[in-house]
Amino acid sequence: MTVFDVAVWKDGKVRMLDQRLLPGAEVYLEFGSAAEVAEAIRAMVVRGAPAIGCAAAFGVAVEAFRLARAGRSGSWPEAMAEGLRLLRQARPTAVNLAWAIDRLEPLLAGDPDGVPERLLHEAERVRLEDIASCRAMGAAGALILPDPPSGRPLTLMTHCNAGALATAGYGTALGVIRAARDRFGEVCVFATETRPFWQGARLTAWELARDGFEVTLMTDSMSGHAMRRGLIDAVVVGADRVAANGDVANKIGTYGHAVLARRHDIPFLVACPLSTIDFATPSGDQIPIEERPDTEVTHVRGQRIAAEGIRVFNPSFDVTPADLVTALVTERGVIHAPDAIRLRALLQGLTDAPFGMRIGTSLA
Amino acid sequence: MTVFDVAVWKDGKVRMLDQRLLPGAEVYLEFGSAAEVAEAIRAMVVRGAPAIGCAAAFGVAVEAFRLARAGRSGSWPEAMAEGLRLLRQARPTAVNLAWAIDRLEPLLAGDPDGVPERLLHEAERVRLEDIASCRAMGAAGALILPDPPSGRPLTLMTHCNAGALATAGYGTALGVIRAARDRFGEVCVFATETRPFWQGARLTAWELARDGFEVTLMTDSMSGHAMRRGLIDAVVVGADRVAANGDVANKIGTYGHAVLARRHDIPFLVACPLSTIDFATPSGDQIPIEERPDTEVTHVRGQRIAAEGIRVFNPSFDVTPADLVTALVTERGVIHAPDAIRLRALLQGLTDAPFGMRIGTSLA
Repeated sequence: MTVFDVAVWKDGKVRMLDQRLLPGAEVYLEFGSAAEVAEAIRAMVVRGAPAIGCAAAFGVAVEAFRLARAGRSGSWPEAMAEGLRLLRQARPTAVNLAWAIDRLEPLLAGDPDGVPERLLHEAERVRLEDIASCRAMGAAGALILPDPPSGRPLTLMTHCNAGALATAGYGTALGVIRAARDRFGEVCVFATETRPFWQGARLTAWELARDGFEVTLMTDSMSGHAMRRGLIDAVVVGADRVAANGDVANKIGTYGHAVLARRHDIPFLVACPLSTIDFATPSGDQIPIEERPDTEVTHVRGQRIAAEGIRVFNPSFDVTPADLVTALVTERGVIHAPDAIRLRALLQGLTDAPFGMRIGTSLA
Repeated sequence: MTVFDVAVWKDGKVRMLDQRLLPGAEVYLEFGSAAEVAEAIRAMVVRGAPAIGCAAAFGVAVEAFRLARAGRSGSWPEAMAEGLRLLRQARPTAVNLAWAIDRLEPLLAGDPDGVPERLLHEAERVRLEDIASCRAMGAAGALILPDPPSGRPLTLMTHCNAGALATAGYGTALGVIRAARDRFGEVCVFATETRPFWQGARLTAWELARDGFEVTLMTDSMSGHAMRRGLIDAVVVGADRVAANGDVANKIGTYGHAVLARRHDIPFLVACPLSTIDFATPSGDQIPIEERPDTEVTHVRGQRIAAEGIRVFNPSFDVTPADLVTALVTERGVIHAPDAIRLRALLQGLTDAPFGMRIGTSLA
């Protein structure tokens, strides 16, 4: 499998692949402060909830090294407050961003010596755990996929990019797809182009084609027709935040695909690490939905496509109610028909509870 | 209201606005043979089922004048066979194309003198009747729209372009929207951009903004989120072909919007002239769905957006089953919950039948 430096530590800087330029060019950028990393997240140099979490963790570490070099004044929590604030505010929907910062922040309060090194160590753990989580999710998700109809390979649909490029490596939804190939031998993928930022056309198609998958690209509006024609065996997507009741915020368009999948009795899987589940948010109605600039919709590569004199609606995410989610795939296993009780049980490690956790039970 | 020469007769040629260049440039092209008109239809200089019907009608007429000037050999039906074949094959889904040719073809068999003039006369009738039909549809459709919630104007969503640009003038779905403004005073419109050909972003937004509507553009993937947030009061679309049972073939993505509208109990109206209803096709399953070139999906304005090494799925239309259509709006009136019996009654002029035709009954 191809490995990318989505967000890594290199020579005292945070190094990231500039995903805005893919697939045309593979350019790596380096960032030396929390403010720079926050801006990179906002501008979508890096995107995808788990990858944003990794980037933010390294952003915290790089800020501490920067302040140490500059002769920090005040306590660590005081000195770092502005950098952490900038990182937290970079994007509102993906909860992994706050989760990663919350994980590193307590280290600021301990022994002031060696804080930058301890932050970096923890950020590196965030990264490595994310890769391990993706592998575990992949294995768990692949086990519950249905067998393909006879005569053709299993065909999975995905939306946006929840791949190696959206994580520290391997991917959440695309991790399930990669593991499915290990299980079934061959897997075909229908990828939606994912307007307005083209993550499907640019990133998922690129990442999967590089790994030898047969990828079929379609516009976001074609999923219903593809399902109606019987071309899709299951839908697998990632998540930017899962509420305590199992409602899923994910890339705009996910909700429509989920409604269509239900109409066609097609399993709809959401793959995400536990860090994406936000137990402090009761339901999807409380998840903040980022609205992004008009030009993402009106322009393509700097050229205006749309007519002048109009308004633009550009929410970056939507919420899929838990009742449309066939199964939530996490690194601790699969929750069928997720709801508040089953999610809470997962968090508490009740993996043998009679409800919810049924790893290895096929959906078919 | 702005009027465009979508497909008209001028100085012995068929004159059409090149819709591929909108909204950037307003360029008119002229065509002097059936082959040229057929190619213009295939290349989408003109698009929209009723507009294609008008273009084809003028294409038949211009071919006859061309043959007359060239000293036609053989009978009219014989001389015109190739031109008619090219026109019929230009695009497969919109039935208005065949309908218009079927309407003109019998004129070839009569008195061989004056055939070109009679064809032109009939083509002009096709055009004028289309405008009148759109006006009648608009009036009928506007009457059944629900009142807006208090505190904001009625907000209608549309997909693709079923406007003045898709007809000889006024529009089918946009005709309903225009008439709704006459009824309600103010109407706001959410327009989907309509990938891959951008008819919403380029044509609907342009046409409605020019007429002073507040138009909000969104990607095709945002309709579910907009509906869930309560922003949409009704969806109004056109049709490329309606089967005898009421199934509707329309621009790809329509089906998904219809499924979402049903989930949110939002009225879903289809506006089309009787010429779009194909009583020879029993259901949507028999409607041929055109697949268009890969580059429509992979490229934007000649620049490749998508990764290399992939396949492309590019069906231009999908089928919305009749049970998702709240009402079919025609120039003869409205059919609520369309089905085979109600459509047949409409054709037979049973406009007072107790089922189906309930002009003026609000959906709310």
